[in-house]
Amino acid sequence: MKHSETYTASDRENVMQAVQMRMSERRFQHVLGVEATAIALAEHYGASVEKASLAALTHDYAKERSDEEFQLAIEQGDYADKAELLRYGNAIWHGIVGADFVKRELKIQDQEILTAIRLHTTGAAEMSLLDKIIYVADYIEPNRVFPGVEDAREIAFIDLDNAVAFETKHTLQHLIENEKEVYPKTIETYNRWVAGLN
Amino acid sequence: MKHSETYTASDRENVMQAVQMRMSERRFQHVLGVEATAIALAEHYGASVEKASLAALTHDYAKERSDEEFQLAIEQGDYADKAELLRYGNAIWHGIVGADFVKRELKIQDQEILTAIRLHTTGAAEMSLLDKIIYVADYIEPNRVFPGVEDAREIAFIDLDNAVAFETKHTLQHLIENEKEVYPKTIETYNRWVAGLN
Repeated sequence: MKHSETYTASDRENVMQAVQMRMSERRFQHVLGVEATAIALAEHYGASVEKASLAALTHDYAKERSDEEFQLAIEQGDYADKAELLRYGNAIWHGIVGADFVKRELKIQDQEILTAIRLHTTGAAEMSLLDKIIYVADYIEPNRVFPGVEDAREIAFIDLDNAVAFETKHTLQHLIENEKEVYPKTIETYNRWVAGLN
Repeated sequence: MKHSETYTASDRENVMQAVQMRMSERRFQHVLGVEATAIALAEHYGASVEKASLAALTHDYAKERSDEEFQLAIEQGDYADKAELLRYGNAIWHGIVGADFVKRELKIQDQEILTAIRLHTTGAAEMSLLDKIIYVADYIEPNRVFPGVEDAREIAFIDLDNAVAFETKHTLQHLIENEKEVYPKTIETYNRWVAGLN
């Protein structure tokens, strides 16, 4: 796609096709659910609907790549602490590293979109409106079924920051209950948005 | 006290008096409970009973200092990331910074004891036997009353690493449930001892 700030319907079609080719039908339906939700949130909060659409469509673009492909990308790429990043797995890589697959393969250069993809799993202490929209849309899209999802959906259209806090707290509780590893950035998100640490 | 590796009954008496002067009677009873538990764990697992006693007696030595005193100590001391450390409060400072009060004021130079004091609240990915004993003893000493403490006491004398994991998981769950800040080192402890990240 082109590198300007203007997106057309054909951009969306091309991106959607490229995304669909890279994943199961089930995951593609999730992606479309995130897109519909992200667009609704963007309209509600006055963000760019086009960027919300493209970031949502591409947020899981790399999710079905192999661990080996991610490991190679990390070793050859420009990441702050490669050894630390390599300790984690697909759950962390598909956002942080996946954004670079989107940039390289889909030619999306928009930094706001790429950052929203990068942060969609972990969040961050500093998040733009678009970052928050993608982070929350991924959690509440219509295909999601878990205890509390209805509360999360309601909060998302009342106060987006509260929705970020709700999602972060419950995701962390779920990880710890199941004794899953926690990426340090998730704690930065928690400390800022849930615990209110400045 | 002297700087050798041999501790005498009079060392213990002197340290105990210095500690008692610095805290409420209630906290002093907690300290004595931690000491009794740490000695029992040291005997059970073959650690130095003398070091366990001194580390336990001094682990909360600085807990009742003012925030201002801790802030000054951080600003004047040798800490890796002072700005980050200053964002937290007494719960974190009384261990990490408190060890330096113990060193300076009680003349305890033993690095194993000082490290056990430093890590007693957060734990760490790498912990010595003494570190684990003080971390766990602080959690299970006889004055502690909370749901699960009986389980923790039982596990502590069966498998000390499992006790570290149990304590870390439940402490983290309690912090998150109450939306309290989480110090990043606590997540390193969790990732190593609970999630098994290497």
